[in-house]
Amino acid sequence: MLINDVNEFELISILAKVLDQGHAKWGMSSMNHLDLTVSNGDDAAAWAPNTPYEVFTMDACVENVHFRRDFSGWYEIGWKTLASNISDIASMGAQPLYGLVTLGVPATFSVKELKEMYQGFADISGQYQMMMVGGDLVRSDNVFISISLIGGSDAPPLTRSKASEGDVVILTGTVGASKAGLLLLQKELPIYDNNETFLIEKHRKPYPHVSQGKVLSRLQNVSTMDVSDGVFSDLTKLCESSECGAIIHSESIPVDDQLSDCFPEDFLKIALSGGEDYVLLATVNPDQIDNLKQNIDLFVIGKIVSKEQGISVLDTHGNHQDKNDFLGWDHFR
Amino acid sequence: MLINDVNEFELISILAKVLDQGHAKWGMSSMNHLDLTVSNGDDAAAWAPNTPYEVFTMDACVENVHFRRDFSGWYEIGWKTLASNISDIASMGAQPLYGLVTLGVPATFSVKELKEMYQGFADISGQYQMMMVGGDLVRSDNVFISISLIGGSDAPPLTRSKASEGDVVILTGTVGASKAGLLLLQKELPIYDNNETFLIEKHRKPYPHVSQGKVLSRLQNVSTMDVSDGVFSDLTKLCESSECGAIIHSESIPVDDQLSDCFPEDFLKIALSGGEDYVLLATVNPDQIDNLKQNIDLFVIGKIVSKEQGISVLDTHGNHQDKNDFLGWDHFR
Repeated sequence: MLINDVNEFELISILAKVLDQGHAKWGMSSMNHLDLTVSNGDDAAAWAPNTPYEVFTMDACVENVHFRRDFSGWYEIGWKTLASNISDIASMGAQPLYGLVTLGVPATFSVKELKEMYQGFADISGQYQMMMVGGDLVRSDNVFISISLIGGSDAPPLTRSKASEGDVVILTGTVGASKAGLLLLQKELPIYDNNETFLIEKHRKPYPHVSQGKVLSRLQNVSTMDVSDGVFSDLTKLCESSECGAIIHSESIPVDDQLSDCFPEDFLKIALSGGEDYVLLATVNPDQIDNLKQNIDLFVIGKIVSKEQGISVLDTHGNHQDKNDFLGWDHFR
Repeated sequence: MLINDVNEFELISILAKVLDQGHAKWGMSSMNHLDLTVSNGDDAAAWAPNTPYEVFTMDACVENVHFRRDFSGWYEIGWKTLASNISDIASMGAQPLYGLVTLGVPATFSVKELKEMYQGFADISGQYQMMMVGGDLVRSDNVFISISLIGGSDAPPLTRSKASEGDVVILTGTVGASKAGLLLLQKELPIYDNNETFLIEKHRKPYPHVSQGKVLSRLQNVSTMDVSDGVFSDLTKLCESSECGAIIHSESIPVDDQLSDCFPEDFLKIALSGGEDYVLLATVNPDQIDNLKQNIDLFVIGKIVSKEQGISVLDTHGNHQDKNDFLGWDHFR
């Protein structure tokens, strides 16, 4: 059954059902989201805000630019596109609340594939206790998925611009696995071993660090970003916003054993340049580290220095490493 | 200068400047939007909500599906894409507040064209006292513009589902001009007269009915939708949501003189089937009409009947007209 075999109402009803069942599996429904006053099917979703701050983000994926259908199933593509939005909310220290999706698909796209994608939306929504509350389906020759997400927070939103000299730079999880998974998929091997499968799975199905963001939001003078374009590239952006520099120690970068096993030569380059890890990169006052460690996993990878010192990556011997090895994703190159 | 000639930071800075200057022209800035705590350049925008209700919508346009670059300039394409989102907020009775945009463009898209599009966003934002607060630029072979918009309202959001027997059906403005403008553009005439230019302009640059929506939101038991797919098609959706039928009198449909002059045979078909008018279609209790008329222009076009009676369009003699003439935009046919 193709999209142009069913009318718009039927299609919306099929997809709303996938979402409702998915949300219900996680104990969520429009009924227990008391703040939600209008959901799927009207011109807009609506609610009564009940947090002192709201955050608002939008992120899109385009076929053959951000994903390939031979590298991931539609379930994972749906999961991951929403994950990248949830991660932006996480980086502000907020809880994701309500999402909308605009899908651009050709008329010959199958309803089965669409349902798989919605199952991905539903499952990650439930996992993070948020709801997809509507959207739009438009005709497009190449597939794109554009998602918009609202989050709520009790604390003022975290930003990129509060890093200052003396702060330590931390990561809330390992990095590089997603990029490694992509590199493995690009090899198109007939079979993958356990380590490789682990890395590929991390590429396909990331878990954003929402609870870590909330813990960070309780501190003062914290800067955060999510690692979407690569640690080095994202740290560069954070330092530009905060008008500071940073020194990173490459041996401190947390990586999964599977990454260093599969890529014994290149794992550090992959870890620093590879994007889509969706852990948080943050700068905090060193006094806060011990306390933070009681609540979240974290890895100190370096420190903030003056703007004039720029950004350096040092190896175990204190030698500067070539930054060109660590450049990440640029959206138009 | 093409997009891939400038780096991401420069490009964001160029576009942010277009928005800032555009907003400023209308007396708006991040400074006087006191609720806005984080704007362009972070992972998400953020604010302190200060209305009891918020509404949230998303709408996208795809090149050669929803617009053609030989039919409208990028300025108008930007304006209109945001207009369709503002109109969804209007139909809920709310005030548009904050918008995000995701643009999918090829790397060879010119910065000049992108700035024109952003000028369109900036001007309609200012006109409606809302702000574009961020977005995302992704690579895509065919151009798409996906916009997401938050609105705020003191009154509970209007919906499609409150029409009941005895209500009158109203429009807040004329319909059909946008479709007529499109039909004229499709003729690709070497020159257009004043009437034709009027209709083409209505196609290219619609003005959503936000203030009308706010007036309607003060009433009880109102149903509203914006006319985006065509009066007949949108009324059908409203009746399905409200589980009712409707009788429309074709001679009551408000049309611009320019439309009836240019299309003396077909203007009613065009008025009832043509979408993208972005006026409001509403059902209200007949007692409220006189009061409403003191605050907004409105045109009574029919009444709500029982579900069993379905939806009919009657001519001046009370004869049923063929509904197939009035079917509007279906997103996948």
